[in-house]
Amino acid sequence: MNIKLTSGKSISSSKGESILNALKRHEIFLLSSCGGKGTCGKCRVKILSGKYKTEITGKLTQSDREKGIVLACQTFPEEDITVEIPEGSKLVVGDKIALAKSKDLNELLKSLNAEITPIVKRLDIKLPPPTIEDYISDLERLKRDLELKGFTGMRFSQTFASSMADEMRKHNWEIHLAYVDGPEAIFVTSEKQVSRYGISVDIGTTTIVVYLIDLSDGKLVDVGSTYNSQIRYGDDVITRIIYAAEGKGLGELREAVTGDINNLLETITEKHKIKKESIESAVISGNTTMTHIFWGLDPEHIREDPYIPTVNFFPMWKAGTARIHINSQSPVYTMPCVASYVGGDIVSGVLASKMHRKSEIALFMDIGTNGEIAVGNNEWLMTAACSAGPCFEGSGIKHGMRATEGAIESVKIDPKTLELSLCIIGNTIPAGVCGSGMIDAISEMFFTGIIDRKGKFVREIKTNRLRQGDEGFEFVLYKGEKDIVLAEVDIENILRAKAAIYAGISLLIKEVGLGLESIERVYVAGGFGNYLDVDKAIILGMLPDLPREKFKFLGNTSIAGAYLCLLSEKMRKEAEEIAKKMTYMELSVSRNFMDEYMSALFLPHTDMGLFPTVAGLLKK
Amino acid sequence: MNIKLTSGKSISSSKGESILNALKRHEIFLLSSCGGKGTCGKCRVKILSGKYKTEITGKLTQSDREKGIVLACQTFPEEDITVEIPEGSKLVVGDKIALAKSKDLNELLKSLNAEITPIVKRLDIKLPPPTIEDYISDLERLKRDLELKGFTGMRFSQTFASSMADEMRKHNWEIHLAYVDGPEAIFVTSEKQVSRYGISVDIGTTTIVVYLIDLSDGKLVDVGSTYNSQIRYGDDVITRIIYAAEGKGLGELREAVTGDINNLLETITEKHKIKKESIESAVISGNTTMTHIFWGLDPEHIREDPYIPTVNFFPMWKAGTARIHINSQSPVYTMPCVASYVGGDIVSGVLASKMHRKSEIALFMDIGTNGEIAVGNNEWLMTAACSAGPCFEGSGIKHGMRATEGAIESVKIDPKTLELSLCIIGNTIPAGVCGSGMIDAISEMFFTGIIDRKGKFVREIKTNRLRQGDEGFEFVLYKGEKDIVLAEVDIENILRAKAAIYAGISLLIKEVGLGLESIERVYVAGGFGNYLDVDKAIILGMLPDLPREKFKFLGNTSIAGAYLCLLSEKMRKEAEEIAKKMTYMELSVSRNFMDEYMSALFLPHTDMGLFPTVAGLLKK
Repeated sequence: MNIKLTSGKSISSSKGESILNALKRHEIFLLSSCGGKGTCGKCRVKILSGKYKTEITGKLTQSDREKGIVLACQTFPEEDITVEIPEGSKLVVGDKIALAKSKDLNELLKSLNAEITPIVKRLDIKLPPPTIEDYISDLERLKRDLELKGFTGMRFSQTFASSMADEMRKHNWEIHLAYVDGPEAIFVTSEKQVSRYGISVDIGTTTIVVYLIDLSDGKLVDVGSTYNSQIRYGDDVITRIIYAAEGKGLGELREAVTGDINNLLETITEKHKIKKESIESAVISGNTTMTHIFWGLDPEHIREDPYIPTVNFFPMWKAGTARIHINSQSPVYTMPCVASYVGGDIVSGVLASKMHRKSEIALFMDIGTNGEIAVGNNEWLMTAACSAGPCFEGSGIKHGMRATEGAIESVKIDPKTLELSLCIIGNTIPAGVCGSGMIDAISEMFFTGIIDRKGKFVREIKTNRLRQGDEGFEFVLYKGEKDIVLAEVDIENILRAKAAIYAGISLLIKEVGLGLESIERVYVAGGFGNYLDVDKAIILGMLPDLPREKFKFLGNTSIAGAYLCLLSEKMRKEAEEIAKKMTYMELSVSRNFMDEYMSALFLPHTDMGLFPTVAGLLKK
Repeated sequence: MNIKLTSGKSISSSKGESILNALKRHEIFLLSSCGGKGTCGKCRVKILSGKYKTEITGKLTQSDREKGIVLACQTFPEEDITVEIPEGSKLVVGDKIALAKSKDLNELLKSLNAEITPIVKRLDIKLPPPTIEDYISDLERLKRDLELKGFTGMRFSQTFASSMADEMRKHNWEIHLAYVDGPEAIFVTSEKQVSRYGISVDIGTTTIVVYLIDLSDGKLVDVGSTYNSQIRYGDDVITRIIYAAEGKGLGELREAVTGDINNLLETITEKHKIKKESIESAVISGNTTMTHIFWGLDPEHIREDPYIPTVNFFPMWKAGTARIHINSQSPVYTMPCVASYVGGDIVSGVLASKMHRKSEIALFMDIGTNGEIAVGNNEWLMTAACSAGPCFEGSGIKHGMRATEGAIESVKIDPKTLELSLCIIGNTIPAGVCGSGMIDAISEMFFTGIIDRKGKFVREIKTNRLRQGDEGFEFVLYKGEKDIVLAEVDIENILRAKAAIYAGISLLIKEVGLGLESIERVYVAGGFGNYLDVDKAIILGMLPDLPREKFKFLGNTSIAGAYLCLLSEKMRKEAEEIAKKMTYMELSVSRNFMDEYMSALFLPHTDMGLFPTVAGLLKK
C-alpha cells in the first residue's frame, strides 16, 4: 500500500503498520510525546482519501473527526490513502538549511577566539581499592583523593551518589569524574568513553529548535525543529502568561515545551544511535517568558506593572530538574535574560552578532514572535521589545509556515503579466509560505499595484489570482492540489507586525539621542531560513531605509548564541556581561509609541521621506 | 454498633464507617500509606466475630481471607464485631513512655552545654520594591541585598526560585530568608511565622520512631512509632540487602520506609493541626543499610567483602529528594555512619551517652536488630557489630511485640507456687511480650527451674502453664481471650541473640587489650520501653557480670542523638567527630568469634566463672 502525501511524496506502508510508523520509516517525523500510545494527541494528520481503520480517541473532537483528522499512531491504512500533515504536527529533523550552517557556526566560534571549554569538566582519578583495613566509604574515598588534588568543597547530589558505587567498581577504581564549577560532581565514567555530546535549544514562542553538538569538535551532528506545542494555549507570550496562571496551566505549558524538546531529542538520538546519557550538557535560549515556563517558574509578574521577572540570571540547574531526557545530572545553562520582554534569545543574538565587541554603532533586530531590538556597541547597549506577533514564523497566517521544506521562501511577480515565479525550500510542491516569502509577496504585490499603500487589494486589477475566500479576498500564490494563498487579513497582520518593529526601532534610536543615519550596521536575525531580501523588507517598511551594504542577515541567532555558550566558557562569561550591560527600555510606557506605530502601518510608511529609495523606485 | 478490640477496649462505630475511620476517631492509628484507598494493603486487621461487609482486594491472599483478615479501610461492620489488630498494622502515636522522656531530652541537651541552633537559619531582609527603573529580577534583587550584607555565593534551587516571587510580594518585600550553611537559600517566609518544627527519625531495621520537635524550645510535641514495613521483605539487614538487589527491590524497600515515616507524620501533624510545610528540618538516624535504603542508595556493597558502604558522611540533601512529606526544601541531616555494620544510630548513641567526653572507659551497647557495641572514652573509640537478630524488638518471637501499650514488660515467677505476676504497659490486657519481658521471663524461668541452662523446658516441672503448642512446647505467660506464650523456639532465638551480643562484647574488649574489669561504665540502649532489669539481663548472660552500679539504661539513644543533632550545631559537629574517631572491628573475620558465641549459648554462659554473682545466686 502507498501513503500519498500532499507534499507530492509517496511512501510505502505495510499491512498493520500505523501511519506514524510508516512515516517514521521514511524519516518523516511527527510530534508524538507519548511515543505512539495514542495518549498525547499530537500526531494529528488529515486523511483526504482512501480506506483506513482508526481507533476512536478522546484526543480528537467530533469536528476533527468530521474533517478526517486522525491520530497517525492509531490509524492503519487499508488501501492507498492520501494524507495531509498539518504544519503543527511536524518534527523537522536533519534540516538541510540548518545543517549547512554547521561550518559557519564553527567559524563563528573561531572568529570570537573562543576555545572549546565545555561546561562539564573531567578529572582523571585512580583510587586505591578498599580493603578490610581501609574501609572508608566510596564517597569518602573519592573525597580523600580530591583533597589530595587540591579540590575541596566539592558537592555531591543524591543522584551522583546513587550511581557512583557501581561505576567505580566497574572501572576498577580508575575513573573520570565529570564535574562542573562550584564545584559539583556530576557523574563518574570510564576512561574509554570518548563521545561527549551537548544540546543547544532555542525555545521560541512559536518554534523550537534543538542542535545536537559533538563537544569534542563543536560539530553540529544534527538539528531538529518543530512548532512549540504551547501554541494551542495561545499565540503570544501574553496569552501564555494568562494561561499559566490558570489552575494547572503552568504545568501544562511546561509539559508542552519539554515534551517538544524530548520528542526532538528522541528522534535525533534514535537516528544517530546516540545514548541520551552521553548528552552531558545543555544550553537553553529563549525569551524571558519561555525561559520561566521551561523552568516551571510562574511568569505572571512579567505582565504586571512594573514587569519584573522572577529570575534573569539562572543558576545552573540540572537536566533532571528541567525534565529533559538527557543525563539527568547534566547541567543546563540558561542564556541570561535582561528584562521581562528582552530575554536570553536576544543576549544570544547580540553575542552571535559580535556587536558588543566593536566600536561601530550597530542595530540588532530579531524578528521572531515578539520582535526585539538592541542598539549599541562595545561601550553601551540599549534594548527594547516590540509586540510584533508570530506571523513571520507562519502563525496566524492562513497558509503561513516556518522556513522548512515546502515553504515558499521567495516570490517574484512580473509587472507586466502579473505572473509569479516562486522559490520553494527543497524544490518540492509548496505547502505554505514562510516569513521571507510573505515579505517578498507583499512588496511585489505593492510594486505591481495588486495592493495599495494600506495593504488592501486593488479590486480593478486584472488577474485571475485574486479571489474571494472564506475570510475575504485572497491572492493565490500557488495553484495545485492545495492552493496556497495570502489573504487580505494576512496582509493586515503582517503590516501590524512590521509597524510594531519599525516603531520600536524608531523610538529606541530617538531614546539614545541618535538618528537612524548614525547606525553603521544592521544585523537582522530571525527564522527566515536561507535568506531575507533586505530590499523587499525595506519596501515593506519593516527595515529602515539605510544603505543596503549596512545590512547583514544572520538567521537564527538565538540558537547560534546557545551553540557558542555550549562550547565555550569565555562565551558564557561574555553573554553574562552583555546581559548586565544592556539597558532595557519599556516601549509600552512611552507616549510616542502609538503615534510611531500608526504612522508605520502604511506601505512603507506614512512619511515617505523616511524611505527615499523606495520613493525613488516607485517613481520609476 | 461497637467494635470490640482484643486489647479489651470497645469503641463505637457508625453505619457506613470503615473500621479504619472508626479506629482513627478513637485515636487508634493503623498503617495506611494510601490514606484509606485500599491500595497499600497495610491496614490489615483480623475479624474474630460479627457480621461485616468488605471489599475484595488483591492485597489479601486466599489464606488471609480464610483467617478473617481484611483491610480496615475497606471493611464496614454490620453489627457488633470483635477485631484483632496485628502488631505490624499499628501506628503508635502519643506514646506515653516516649513523651515522658521529653524533659530528659531537654536536660540532656543542656547537660551537653548545647544551645539551640537549628539547621535552618534565618535572615531578616527588607527589599526595595521594584519599579520601572529598578527592573532587576526578584532573584537579582535578593542577591543584591545579600551581597550588601556580605553574603556571597548563596545557592538557589529551582524549587526555591519557583516559590519565592509570590512570597516576596505577599509580604511586601519584607521577608525572612531561611537558609542553610553552604550557603543555600531554602525558602522565603513572612516575619510573622513563628512556629518552626523539625523531626528526628530513628529508622531501625525493625521499628521506626518519629519525634516532632518544636525548634524554638526543643520540646517534644509528639512521638509516633511503628514496625518498619520493610519487615515483609525480610527480618534482618542481610535479607533486605539481597532483596534490594532484585529488580525493583531497592525502590520497594525505599517506598516502604518513607511510607511509614510519612504515615506517622500525617497522623501526628493532623492530630496537632500543624502544617507539614512548617516542618523545616529533619535528622535521620539508622544503621548503614537502613540509611542507604532511605536515600535510595543500593546497599549491595555492604555485604560484599571488604564491606564498603557507598556513603558514611551524607551531604545534607533535601526532604524532596528523600521523599518525606515535609517542606520539600527542608534539609535532611543524616547521622554519620562508621562502617557497613556500625551506622548513624550508634554514633547517635555514643553522642547521647556522653562517653566521648569523659575519661572513664565505657562500654556502650545498643540492643536493636543487630546489637552494636562501642568501647572507649574521650581519647579513643572502638566499635563492632554482633548479628543478634530482631527478637528483642518482638520480631521472630511468637507473641513478641515492641514496648508499647499492651506489652508484658516485666515478669515475676513465685519460686514456690510458680504463679506469675506481670506488668503490662498501659495496665491493659496483654497483647504480647516485649524485650524486657522476655529477658525477665527467661531469667525467672531459669531461676525457678522451668527451663534448664540450655533454655529447654524441664518437662518434670509441675505447672499447668507448660503445654504443647503448634511449634513445640510453650509456656503460657497470660491466659485470656488471646493467650500470650513464650515457646521453646522463642527461647532458642533469644539465647542466640544474647550469645551474639555477649561474644561481641567479649571479643571487642580483648581486641583493645583490656579485661571486662577495666570497664568503668556500661550504657545499655535499646527500645526496651520504661526499663531493662540489669540483674535479669546478667542472669540471661546478655550483659557481663559487673557491679550493678556501673550500668545505666538509656532507652532509645538513636532517636536521642537525632534529637540532639536536630537542635544543635555543636552536637552535629560532635557526631561527625565521633564517627571519624571510631575504629571499626569486623567480628566476622575474627577466628575466635565462633568459640565465644558457642560458649555464650548457655544460661548465663558455659564458663560460670565469668558470672560469679549469678553462680552465687544459684547456690542460694
